[in-house]
Amino acid sequence: MLKDLSPEQVKKYTKSELNVLCDKLRLTIYDTVMQCGGHLASNLGSVESTVALFYVFDFPQDKIVFDVGHQCYAYKLLSGRAENFSTLRQAGGISGFPKRNESEYDCYDTGHAGTSVSAAIGLAKAYALKGEKRNVIAYIGDGSFNNGLVYEALNSLKIFNTNVLIILNDNDMSISPTVGGMHDMLTQIKDKQKAENIRLLESFGLTYMGVKNGNDVEEMVDALTEAKQLMQNGSVLLHIATKKGKGYEFSEEHPTNTHGVPPVGSPKEKEYSEILGETLCELAETNTDMAVVSAAMKEALGLEEFFKKFPERAFDVGICEENASVLCAAMALGGLKTYYAIYSTFLQRAFDEIIHDVCAQDAAVTFCIDRAGISGADGETHQGVFDLSYLSLIPNLAIAVPKDTEELKSFLRFSATYSHPLAIRYPRSGKVLFDSNDTKIELGKWEYLRQHPIANATIIAAGERSLIIAMKISQNLAEKGMKIDVVNARFVKPLDIELLQNLQTEHIVTIEDNVFLGGLGSLINGQLIAMNKPCKIKNFAYRDEFIPQGKVGQLQCEYGVSCTDIENYLLNVYESR
Amino acid sequence: MLKDLSPEQVKKYTKSELNVLCDKLRLTIYDTVMQCGGHLASNLGSVESTVALFYVFDFPQDKIVFDVGHQCYAYKLLSGRAENFSTLRQAGGISGFPKRNESEYDCYDTGHAGTSVSAAIGLAKAYALKGEKRNVIAYIGDGSFNNGLVYEALNSLKIFNTNVLIILNDNDMSISPTVGGMHDMLTQIKDKQKAENIRLLESFGLTYMGVKNGNDVEEMVDALTEAKQLMQNGSVLLHIATKKGKGYEFSEEHPTNTHGVPPVGSPKEKEYSEILGETLCELAETNTDMAVVSAAMKEALGLEEFFKKFPERAFDVGICEENASVLCAAMALGGLKTYYAIYSTFLQRAFDEIIHDVCAQDAAVTFCIDRAGISGADGETHQGVFDLSYLSLIPNLAIAVPKDTEELKSFLRFSATYSHPLAIRYPRSGKVLFDSNDTKIELGKWEYLRQHPIANATIIAAGERSLIIAMKISQNLAEKGMKIDVVNARFVKPLDIELLQNLQTEHIVTIEDNVFLGGLGSLINGQLIAMNKPCKIKNFAYRDEFIPQGKVGQLQCEYGVSCTDIENYLLNVYESR
Repeated sequence: MLKDLSPEQVKKYTKSELNVLCDKLRLTIYDTVMQCGGHLASNLGSVESTVALFYVFDFPQDKIVFDVGHQCYAYKLLSGRAENFSTLRQAGGISGFPKRNESEYDCYDTGHAGTSVSAAIGLAKAYALKGEKRNVIAYIGDGSFNNGLVYEALNSLKIFNTNVLIILNDNDMSISPTVGGMHDMLTQIKDKQKAENIRLLESFGLTYMGVKNGNDVEEMVDALTEAKQLMQNGSVLLHIATKKGKGYEFSEEHPTNTHGVPPVGSPKEKEYSEILGETLCELAETNTDMAVVSAAMKEALGLEEFFKKFPERAFDVGICEENASVLCAAMALGGLKTYYAIYSTFLQRAFDEIIHDVCAQDAAVTFCIDRAGISGADGETHQGVFDLSYLSLIPNLAIAVPKDTEELKSFLRFSATYSHPLAIRYPRSGKVLFDSNDTKIELGKWEYLRQHPIANATIIAAGERSLIIAMKISQNLAEKGMKIDVVNARFVKPLDIELLQNLQTEHIVTIEDNVFLGGLGSLINGQLIAMNKPCKIKNFAYRDEFIPQGKVGQLQCEYGVSCTDIENYLLNVYESR
Repeated sequence: MLKDLSPEQVKKYTKSELNVLCDKLRLTIYDTVMQCGGHLASNLGSVESTVALFYVFDFPQDKIVFDVGHQCYAYKLLSGRAENFSTLRQAGGISGFPKRNESEYDCYDTGHAGTSVSAAIGLAKAYALKGEKRNVIAYIGDGSFNNGLVYEALNSLKIFNTNVLIILNDNDMSISPTVGGMHDMLTQIKDKQKAENIRLLESFGLTYMGVKNGNDVEEMVDALTEAKQLMQNGSVLLHIATKKGKGYEFSEEHPTNTHGVPPVGSPKEKEYSEILGETLCELAETNTDMAVVSAAMKEALGLEEFFKKFPERAFDVGICEENASVLCAAMALGGLKTYYAIYSTFLQRAFDEIIHDVCAQDAAVTFCIDRAGISGADGETHQGVFDLSYLSLIPNLAIAVPKDTEELKSFLRFSATYSHPLAIRYPRSGKVLFDSNDTKIELGKWEYLRQHPIANATIIAAGERSLIIAMKISQNLAEKGMKIDVVNARFVKPLDIELLQNLQTEHIVTIEDNVFLGGLGSLINGQLIAMNKPCKIKNFAYRDEFIPQGKVGQLQCEYGVSCTDIENYLLNVYESR
């Protein structure tokens, strides 16, 4: 059984026993992902190399940093976490990413691409300065290898003068197929071992080694044994060719669709991404001066059809969020209306470029920000709960939060006529469509979803999840005689000053799917104070913590932003009057 | 005269006339910088190549993006801005950086490193899609070429399938000497034209051309003429070797010291950077497990001495702000106390890594953030007015704002015992030392600089500039019978909840050297609302705009955060009671 297997025992296995172990791991990964959801294809592809790593290296004395972390399941299973592995991605369970607080075998938390080489160099340098003898390894996919941060890290290898082993797991895929010049170069090396390309890597101070079949555990053991020797004298790049989805035919054939998979039997919900794709296609039919950019995520963002229909105006630049942002700004200044579709958490990488390249130049870029708010099972590194905060501090940027998938459509149509920076943020799935009499989008104008002649309190909420809570509370409390108005704060920036000025209720409650600091509630507080408007405000938002994995509803309860919490607050206010 | 010279006339010059023109430009640049301050050495080095560009290309029909913008003075002088050039870096005058709102010759605003190649690709693609025939050029120094964003851009050249000319102005310098593997590779190309290194660039889809002396205008004209031909069929990298500071002996010999220079006769003020350097050296004497990282700015940050004294624990990684952040996090997790010294505006680049690598992992990294608040003559792209906002939204991060250079020392000593993420932000120069009875730093504790038994109002201010204003107001209004308490909010996060809770005054005024949104005032508003504390609050901070170049005092007046504005507000409140 995997759960009884210690890292020491792996070292005693014969090579054929190692192969049996690989099969077992693959089966466990497959079964668990079908149950819990998770990253399938990438984790199937890295089984053999991980087993070989345990055979050759001594963890946790030696250290490994998994870039992004989509390849760490086999590592988790072999480092004492097999027993609890069935809790993968569940609240309180095993994380889908490396987590230092989970095991001493995890030395560096990852989640976003490109950090592993820098992290490995930093760790190796610290151990060296402290006189600790450890081998430090970065394990990185070819998709991440496109990221500029990796280049910066390679560039600094000589400066740090310390030895690391970089395993480049090359499966030709990011989440989408890997693209760009570096990928072409790597492919040339893989195919022809082109000497001049290898020498480039050597100019960074790396010794190059190649493995033709990284899914052959014996070949991997031999290569890692040699690499371990070599890295005593300098840094090594071990370039291994693997098959994403290895061993599961459907996944091998559909590596993008099986990159991240939901649990079997998950209900199919309408996704905002579908609306994005459809509406951008519709807009592109009439506007030829329009372009769309994605950073290696076109399928998950709903853009597959757009890329097929308008290939000359659709650009996937790989995992290069900063580059994508500058490209959008420049294309906008060159006269195109540009759309940059991306997950909330990944947009953090382009923060400086949003400020200077897009907003300071007032470029007509629309950011389509998916997976905003709590994203759920991926945990801390993937929650989209900071975007309202880090975007609202930027001058010239309008921020829209559609109340439902229909309103996303309206915002996108609005964006076509809006010639300034605009961010539209929305969660993955749409659950409801709200009744609305006011479908026309006007910059900085909100709408009432429920309004009484005289109300006890006004809930101002942004986005579908928060408005579902607001409407439910309004309905529940109506039964208790309270009249609660509900406002759809469809623009978080600019705020609807006029509506705020005219508010008649003494109590205001804000709800948002974001942290409090710098978010909607904070902006409204500031505005009301500036207007010197006397009223009682209560803000419901996520508190100042990194939010772990869990289901949306669970986390709302745990963080005090659930329907019950807010209803109780209002009830209390009402009863204590 | 330069001011009567049109771009068309340059094209008619003989080669010897071009040389005369270069001398004229050089002299004007030198004289103006001595008068106004500015970037000297880099602008002296780029004169000949700029003249040659005007000779060969047709601006503004053709377009050029200057990376960072430290090389654009000659370009400005040749594109109709000679007459006003004496207003360089003054309020309302010519900017030291490319600015679209200044001239149709400027097509893309820059200020931070590494954006030029992405921008050129984006512009070229937009023009191509719109059927406009223009040549697009990126002009970039070897220092910027280290930045990961450039690598991402090169990597996407093939994806965009459009032609640009990249002029790599290689003078072996960033602000500090250029470092790292890429620089070594470029040097090998320069020195030996090593074929394998050139082929790397070709794998990105670039045709390589080299110019041995980029300060020879005739050689540059010939090379650019050829490059212009070549770029009709594909992208070109023109690698030119130049001398930073060219033509001014002292600058050639001291390119770092003459990178950015103040106007002649500027008063010498004590700088926070000096205190940083001294104190870090002091700490490093007793703590061997300590390291310092800089991103190509060690001199300006006051770290020259530290790098000399502790070379094995001091790392300059080049213009790679993200890499520096991850390296600090990893070294901290590996057991070192790490310090990352950087300008406020440049830290924006590492936003995602501050969140995930440093703060989510609760790593013992101290950010020493120089040039915070209004930085002055460099304008929009260099104002450090966003850091309180984008840092305060990050969990686990404490933010300290010393009131004077002495308190910076105290904070650094405090940091040595603090094992979590900490940001310390301060402006360039220290003007005063405040009297203080409470020099002991305690996390989240503020101090009163002036306190009355019963006060009319309390000013809560962070940082030297704001506290100077606060103290002056307190003194001025005392003469009018008002008692104004002054609190030094030395931690912007966590706030001093106890002090806020115990505040007795009805009026609270906040002052900060930051934008309002997400800054100190906003944090205090949120806290007071959460505590349900009845009081009148007025926030003074920079409004939601990009702030142009100007002197600190000028901008304070213009943006309503001057002593007069705040004093008048308080007087009004007092008189209307």
